[in-house]
Amino acid sequence: MTRIFADNKETLHNLRKYVSSALKKKSSMKIALAQLNYTVGDITGNKNKIIGSIEKARREKADLIVFSELAICGYPPHDLLMRKKITDDISRAMCEISDHCTDIAAIVGAPSENFLLDGKRLYNSARVLQKGKCIFEAAHKKLLSSYDVYDEHRYFNPDHCYNKFDLNDDHSFTVFEYKGKRIAVIIGDELWRNSKAGDALMHNQSGSDMPLSMRIALQVRPDFIINIAATPFTTNRSYDKNYNRNAVLAFKASCPLLYVNQVGASSELIFDGGSMVINEGKITYRMKRFEEDLFFVDTENWDDKDLSENDIDLDDSSEIRKPEIKLIYDALVLGIRDYFAKSGLKKALLGISGGLDSAVVAALAVAALGNENVHGLLLPSKYSSNHSITDAVALANNLGMSYDTVTIKDVYDRMEATLAPLFNKQQPDVTEENIQARIRGMLLMAYSNKFGHIVLNTSNKSEAAAGYGTLYGDMCGALSVLGDVYKTDVYRLAHYINSEKEIIPLNTIQKPPSAELRPDQKDSDSLPDYEILDAILYRYIELNFDICDIVYDGYDEETVKRIVTLLHRNEYKRAQCSPILRVSSRAFGTGWRMPLVAKYNV
Amino acid sequence: MTRIFADNKETLHNLRKYVSSALKKKSSMKIALAQLNYTVGDITGNKNKIIGSIEKARREKADLIVFSELAICGYPPHDLLMRKKITDDISRAMCEISDHCTDIAAIVGAPSENFLLDGKRLYNSARVLQKGKCIFEAAHKKLLSSYDVYDEHRYFNPDHCYNKFDLNDDHSFTVFEYKGKRIAVIIGDELWRNSKAGDALMHNQSGSDMPLSMRIALQVRPDFIINIAATPFTTNRSYDKNYNRNAVLAFKASCPLLYVNQVGASSELIFDGGSMVINEGKITYRMKRFEEDLFFVDTENWDDKDLSENDIDLDDSSEIRKPEIKLIYDALVLGIRDYFAKSGLKKALLGISGGLDSAVVAALAVAALGNENVHGLLLPSKYSSNHSITDAVALANNLGMSYDTVTIKDVYDRMEATLAPLFNKQQPDVTEENIQARIRGMLLMAYSNKFGHIVLNTSNKSEAAAGYGTLYGDMCGALSVLGDVYKTDVYRLAHYINSEKEIIPLNTIQKPPSAELRPDQKDSDSLPDYEILDAILYRYIELNFDICDIVYDGYDEETVKRIVTLLHRNEYKRAQCSPILRVSSRAFGTGWRMPLVAKYNV
Repeated sequence: MTRIFADNKETLHNLRKYVSSALKKKSSMKIALAQLNYTVGDITGNKNKIIGSIEKARREKADLIVFSELAICGYPPHDLLMRKKITDDISRAMCEISDHCTDIAAIVGAPSENFLLDGKRLYNSARVLQKGKCIFEAAHKKLLSSYDVYDEHRYFNPDHCYNKFDLNDDHSFTVFEYKGKRIAVIIGDELWRNSKAGDALMHNQSGSDMPLSMRIALQVRPDFIINIAATPFTTNRSYDKNYNRNAVLAFKASCPLLYVNQVGASSELIFDGGSMVINEGKITYRMKRFEEDLFFVDTENWDDKDLSENDIDLDDSSEIRKPEIKLIYDALVLGIRDYFAKSGLKKALLGISGGLDSAVVAALAVAALGNENVHGLLLPSKYSSNHSITDAVALANNLGMSYDTVTIKDVYDRMEATLAPLFNKQQPDVTEENIQARIRGMLLMAYSNKFGHIVLNTSNKSEAAAGYGTLYGDMCGALSVLGDVYKTDVYRLAHYINSEKEIIPLNTIQKPPSAELRPDQKDSDSLPDYEILDAILYRYIELNFDICDIVYDGYDEETVKRIVTLLHRNEYKRAQCSPILRVSSRAFGTGWRMPLVAKYNV
Repeated sequence: MTRIFADNKETLHNLRKYVSSALKKKSSMKIALAQLNYTVGDITGNKNKIIGSIEKARREKADLIVFSELAICGYPPHDLLMRKKITDDISRAMCEISDHCTDIAAIVGAPSENFLLDGKRLYNSARVLQKGKCIFEAAHKKLLSSYDVYDEHRYFNPDHCYNKFDLNDDHSFTVFEYKGKRIAVIIGDELWRNSKAGDALMHNQSGSDMPLSMRIALQVRPDFIINIAATPFTTNRSYDKNYNRNAVLAFKASCPLLYVNQVGASSELIFDGGSMVINEGKITYRMKRFEEDLFFVDTENWDDKDLSENDIDLDDSSEIRKPEIKLIYDALVLGIRDYFAKSGLKKALLGISGGLDSAVVAALAVAALGNENVHGLLLPSKYSSNHSITDAVALANNLGMSYDTVTIKDVYDRMEATLAPLFNKQQPDVTEENIQARIRGMLLMAYSNKFGHIVLNTSNKSEAAAGYGTLYGDMCGALSVLGDVYKTDVYRLAHYINSEKEIIPLNTIQKPPSAELRPDQKDSDSLPDYEILDAILYRYIELNFDICDIVYDGYDEETVKRIVTLLHRNEYKRAQCSPILRVSSRAFGTGWRMPLVAKYNV
């Protein structure tokens, strides 16, 4: 292989333009980007989806079709990858897919076997299917992700021929030649990660290395790079300077780049699609967000004006820098919809209290499942204010959803009487508050058992963090819709939902938040104002700031210490909470692995 | 460094004997092995424990003292390692410890900083403290553990100078020279792992490579190897041929080996200690199991008869091959005791039903916490048989624990009446059964809230696997004691508990298992016999067998498919269950990461 060293970026840029235009004359290639919604473990279903798109692409005379990372099994497959049956099923499905690749090539994300004696049994690979055969792997993932929600070292071996200390090694990176084009394939966050970056995200350190995609662009000078990914949606990635810096670098300095993401939700994770064509540092085409999509791009027309209608400058895109509340809304709707669809479920149930959180969850559920599939229970107690009922009824009517009203008073009185001999005239305390919350939980679960509903949890992230909730009470439910949304963002969601007409009653938004478990109770009796609570939690959880850093940002030291203590003291509650739809860069769940029995010095 | 190549094992063995006896004449060294019970995150407490042992060892004129893996922060520290404050606290604590190492050297397991630009921020290291300074790292962990409950790639960089493809590289392994001895240090499961083994465990593949400890023994020929570890107790590791083969190889063929484990429980994981001195393939001394211990060994007397009183042949030790039920008992008692002690809690509460599971949990809790700290609630319903009460009372009396009786009937009737308008004369089904279980859960939680008890969960592994339990009902509790013990082993535990006198009433052991949630209900109405259920579950979960492998072992295909379907269909329940004390090689919890929303083709 001839190698040309680029002294500086400009030389390289000109060189690339020259080579690229020379190649253009030689041939053009039509590439289909398939952004699909896979179901984890459903090898047959995923295979059929993949074949369906291949057939569409063949009808359009595409030369190549590209599917996302681990498309065949869906991402993340977790410990299913340890089961031999799954990998056998995958091999058979890949053969069947390749039967459809006679006059087209397909790049499909799939695990592949590591035949070396060393390391884990599988690679995370991009397999090339062509001429009716599963021919070879265009790439194995080199920089495995073991941070946040990712556990790739648990399953995969990193590509063995990648030696990170030798950038000048020609064999470090491979290209795949097809119809006169030299194509490099990278997998997942290799796009923007350097070998330090996955760690840096968690440590507020800046990686100094260049992203892998840039190394490849500089070193093997492919005609274009294909990045097959499974990148979940997060609102806060934009705040992460390291991510942004690297991503922008990767996009800007590389050769043309085709980024194919999956779409759809899988338990906690919501994948937003938004696959892209990028040329000369500009997004020249962005595929749909939160929906399946199929797009054809021609290598002679990267910069075709037809493509660049939604041309976005990566440096100051408001979409990347300042995510709109609309994106969180769309993500949560998709998260609910796919949780139900992929579990074979239809009907959701939730307690509507007249408060903000349950109102927002109800609106999201109705958007996801249709109002005919969402049922509310109003569960007033003697401490419920009058407006609780009227606000909840107004909400249900606005949404066109059905509801029933069941008072918890009788059961509560009987609980009190049953426990009276044991409690022996002790003063009421949090026990009695929890009993009310647990009776509500029990009624919701009973109704859902009888009629086949799934209970949606309505706790928000601020409450989950501070432990302001009752285990088996208001913390019950199969899926937590708002568990990764701070209370202040729940308000923003409510305003967004109301942007066209009043769906959530204004009184629900305006009244002071209260659990209504004792007379005149307010959240602010137990917690700081949500503006302050959320700002502190965000810094501690998402930005990984230490207490001193948060105090340096202007927050009261005692308050910060109190909140951090509350946060860790309630690990035991979160250990049993519902799975949470993840929209931030760090959600409670698999991305937050704190010891349960531990001493937290604050 | 001069290198001698060993042509075969015998030559090497003779050579080692010669060198070893030559060195013996030169000097002897007294080494203290400190097997301590650390609390995760409690840097100050752990530091003080370490200093206490150093002072004891100094008084005994020891030359060197060895502490276990990540001793300073306790294992597993999880995401605490991402917080800068913790690593700062650790640095300060290590300095303070080193102040006590003026006439003694200490090897302390601790994270250390990776100053390279590449990779994760920390190493998992063995730091050498001497002459009042924290001098250097004797080793960084090379083979990080990312399997089962371990996530080390999430936090650590593997030792960069280890190149697994170059066994002949002198720089691959380092020794540390001290008082005329050449000492190699390896960390954790590097003792028995080769680079494939961690994976092989999960895949039923055999690793063909030799364990790291053997490579080191052959390559750098140290006078002895120190293995600092944090190895949790498991009953079933003995069944794992690959583990055994590698461990035996490592023990047998290496030079003398000092294995220092931690002891004590940390959330799910129970560390059993049992640190060892091994020479010429024999365990010449084994330290206490399930207790702190400090032992002194002299390098001139590896084979001192005083040490070898409990000499164990590794090849057919019944302790390693066939774990006794006693070990499970001891492990669970330590697990309960440390959960309470390390959380600053004292009093446990549980529902005692007259059934087997709650009886065994009560006995374990009394053994762990004392009968004055364990309280039982008898919660009969109209379906409870007469013997439920008498058996539960007999149990409480035998254990000398207090109890109260609270009928659930009144609350249940009120629930029925409250729901009647909604349920509209539908036939009773599992809904009504769940309501009873949830009322019991609510009463337990209320009592625990009022009096400051912690509720112990009494579900067993067979039930947890099959989903035979009610979420927020009998699945409630802060800690699951038997969630990793199959029902058939619960029987064995009961017999063990009764081995000296009848503590668990015989009737409790002999009657057919029943949830008593409807008239004449038996577990066998819903589940296969526990002998069959457990055998199938064990093969699927612990041995990672596919369905066809289990059928090959003689089990009915329909039954196997039904059980595997039940297992996966109930992931959503286990996602919200209490943390489970782990005693097997694969427990539900962090070692079982199955997707929640997925299609499982059986």
